[in-house]
Amino acid sequence: MGWGIATTITGGDGKGLLLPNRKAPTPQYASTKEMEIAIRRIREETGPLVDIISMDPEDLHAHGYSEWSTVNASSLPVAVAYPRSTEQVSTIARICHEYHVPIIPYSGGSSLEGNFSAPFGGISVDFAYMDQIVQFNREDMDVVVQPSIGWQDLNDQLADMGSRLFFPVDPGPTAKIGGMIGTNCSGTNAVRYGTMKDWVINLTVVLADGTVIKTRRRPRKSSAGYNLNGLFVGSEGTLGLVTEATLKLAVAPEALSVAVVTFPTIRDAASAAAEVMQNGIPVAAMEIMDEVQMRVVNLGGATAPRVWRELPTLFFKFSGTKASVAENIGSVQGIARRNGGGKFEFARDGREQKLLWSARKESLWSMLALRKGREEVWSTDVAVPFSRLADIIEVSKKEMDDLGLFASILGHIGDGNFHESILYDPNNGEREKVEECVKKMVRRALDMEGTCTGEHSIGWGKKESLLWEVGPDTLAVMRAIKAALDPRWILNPGKIFDRQAN
Amino acid sequence: MGWGIATTITGGDGKGLLLPNRKAPTPQYASTKEMEIAIRRIREETGPLVDIISMDPEDLHAHGYSEWSTVNASSLPVAVAYPRSTEQVSTIARICHEYHVPIIPYSGGSSLEGNFSAPFGGISVDFAYMDQIVQFNREDMDVVVQPSIGWQDLNDQLADMGSRLFFPVDPGPTAKIGGMIGTNCSGTNAVRYGTMKDWVINLTVVLADGTVIKTRRRPRKSSAGYNLNGLFVGSEGTLGLVTEATLKLAVAPEALSVAVVTFPTIRDAASAAAEVMQNGIPVAAMEIMDEVQMRVVNLGGATAPRVWRELPTLFFKFSGTKASVAENIGSVQGIARRNGGGKFEFARDGREQKLLWSARKESLWSMLALRKGREEVWSTDVAVPFSRLADIIEVSKKEMDDLGLFASILGHIGDGNFHESILYDPNNGEREKVEECVKKMVRRALDMEGTCTGEHSIGWGKKESLLWEVGPDTLAVMRAIKAALDPRWILNPGKIFDRQAN
Repeated sequence: MGWGIATTITGGDGKGLLLPNRKAPTPQYASTKEMEIAIRRIREETGPLVDIISMDPEDLHAHGYSEWSTVNASSLPVAVAYPRSTEQVSTIARICHEYHVPIIPYSGGSSLEGNFSAPFGGISVDFAYMDQIVQFNREDMDVVVQPSIGWQDLNDQLADMGSRLFFPVDPGPTAKIGGMIGTNCSGTNAVRYGTMKDWVINLTVVLADGTVIKTRRRPRKSSAGYNLNGLFVGSEGTLGLVTEATLKLAVAPEALSVAVVTFPTIRDAASAAAEVMQNGIPVAAMEIMDEVQMRVVNLGGATAPRVWRELPTLFFKFSGTKASVAENIGSVQGIARRNGGGKFEFARDGREQKLLWSARKESLWSMLALRKGREEVWSTDVAVPFSRLADIIEVSKKEMDDLGLFASILGHIGDGNFHESILYDPNNGEREKVEECVKKMVRRALDMEGTCTGEHSIGWGKKESLLWEVGPDTLAVMRAIKAALDPRWILNPGKIFDRQAN
Repeated sequence: MGWGIATTITGGDGKGLLLPNRKAPTPQYASTKEMEIAIRRIREETGPLVDIISMDPEDLHAHGYSEWSTVNASSLPVAVAYPRSTEQVSTIARICHEYHVPIIPYSGGSSLEGNFSAPFGGISVDFAYMDQIVQFNREDMDVVVQPSIGWQDLNDQLADMGSRLFFPVDPGPTAKIGGMIGTNCSGTNAVRYGTMKDWVINLTVVLADGTVIKTRRRPRKSSAGYNLNGLFVGSEGTLGLVTEATLKLAVAPEALSVAVVTFPTIRDAASAAAEVMQNGIPVAAMEIMDEVQMRVVNLGGATAPRVWRELPTLFFKFSGTKASVAENIGSVQGIARRNGGGKFEFARDGREQKLLWSARKESLWSMLALRKGREEVWSTDVAVPFSRLADIIEVSKKEMDDLGLFASILGHIGDGNFHESILYDPNNGEREKVEECVKKMVRRALDMEGTCTGEHSIGWGKKESLLWEVGPDTLAVMRAIKAALDPRWILNPGKIFDRQAN
């Protein structure tokens, strides 16, 4: 069956199960007065020792506006709540449910598609004070954490406890577990270790009306009932507020090697990457960076005085036992050579490995640091099947270069996933050109049977793309699930899709 | 937060979102007359070239009764439909929706918990004629298939096309992709390759009212909208009928080695297995079999004249490059020795590897072959965190042995997942004793924070266990999702949970 059929065969009689949501009115949220009552009641029920509510204007701005997001809503939350426990989150939800007040969860704030913006006002729930490891089950290879622990901090704490275990999902350095669950994020390790959904054993979730559920106990594998982990992960806080998560951990490999290799063109680099995957070589990570992004790394100076060649480049991480690392390097070198690749340059020691990899991971922030005056960065991602990678990257890069702006391509090419990052001045008409260029890339990815986002998620910014991607009937299924779990539509409204069908 | 809290903190006001489903009445299904009209209309709309409906009594029996299931309903389906296309499945659903006729999907029929039983009658939809590879995307490492292709047949066809790619999820030999999706099945390879949900790229699904959706296009990774793949996989046909699936494929490893090693006690074997996992050794498979199950292998004669020692045993599969296989064998041998393990015995060649592994995989059928007279087999599975594996296996085996029946323990121990298989005579009161023994094992697994099923799923037989496992509020979330997507409750009713709260 081709893709198009999904919207043409419809067996319903026009009064089918999905229709009610299509005709649902725009949600009506609390008036200012009701909002004030709700906030007062939250203060009463969670106080008096600590006031968990902030209405400080700077705080509201920080929780409703992002300088690195592709989009921002014109409104801000009316309050920020800082709960200390699942019980307090439950209280907030119960009261917001009663008064129809929107709730927007907030953890690291590093998302890129307006995911924590507040288009309908409401209360931003910042989990800043829920950032602890609750329980480390060393023998079971899992850890129970609160949502505002950062993945780097989690790994540092595990290392401090003398553990060989680590949490392998590695998005942007400032990302926290709660948001990582919300967006089903990934990172450079995803090609080896998978994405966030693959590492969640259970979640404690506060539902729209304040009910607290736990999705499962602690088995690493289960076929018992619906996979609620898989549903809540990636739902961007629109179905519930995650207040605790049990995460699988992996055993740190014995040996690690980091290398870079340059190619004459970005197409050659992409072709080599696809071949590595098609040969099943278990690289630990494989990243593509174009010549512009390599320049950003050099400008950032993370590995100074060492300077990298400013050419299309693949970054590799190899890990495993010493013998398997050596074998994998040999196999990948052969593939790179056949695709025009140069000599492998290896990080010389653990310190350089770390610096080089962090230079890759800091790339968005390095771009942001290069902004002058009023410039902004548009950073977006798509993913396509392997066979189309070289094509889409080549064409998209050309179109991007034709803009005449400072712009780069980079990404997790082993997952078929890459990013465009474009610096522009929003005040001289550049934004429209950038937006058009990005939308063309998204359309192209969909035409190639890809997705409009491999890891950033939909948020406020990519709702139209999601509709293009899955079509109205699939979107109606998502909307029906949302309506069932959040009938008053108070959880992160305006994200992923609107209540009314587009 | 401990487990118990989920049912004690509830923020709702008693009029919350989950309540409507708790009070919903038992569904009313079509009368015999309405059922007849529905069947006639299905015949009319899908004919006249082929009659896709069978009402042959033997056919009805084969689609409503299973001699290897732990439970069977007292009723049978009233008809079996054999659709040839997604469009025909859509027609069936649309008409059944109109007349309130239950629909029960059927593919391999090898499930163990009454998953395809027909407690409310209705139409069994057997996908037997939808068993093809629709499209093989070699470069993208994926394949589009219909639901009734068997996983072994899929792999044979891929090999015939000269591909190094294979589909790694390996449950019972007769399982087919549709049912494997329904139960989120796994198998011996799961410890290395994960379970069914990890291998699904997209699904074409016929919803309750006949609407056809596709969950995604073909990206191997995506963060776009709700993870409907993850929701439909494991939902046992209660949310929709899968008519097509795009599956990821893996590259076959270069080298393979199969070995067995015996231990003085089942506890020692389980301890060794947990240590292998805790050391992160990437075994391709690791299975436990007790002395009874080893006897079954010998009795089966698959590897005759070679006879295996009838002691608690671990089966290992090692795969990768030659060097990494050698390294992994060395590491595992060290762990086995420290836990009292004997000498590793390796399969001598590819043929013996295959025979030995298939003896393991055929174990349930080998048990069935040993039945005398009216005897039946009860086969059930649980999974627990690694640290509890040795404890639960030791105690459960003792309780099982105390029954004085022919009974064995075996399983996918690298996932913390194992099975009890017990031969009993249902006509002399043994069934009650067996059931009590099995339920005690399930309770014990839950007390150890495990799950009532690692891979068999809930079906008709384990609904009570699921309630024990997740509690009423989590079950209410599942029920709310079901009610949203299947408001007339026609899709595989009576499975996973009942419409009315238990």
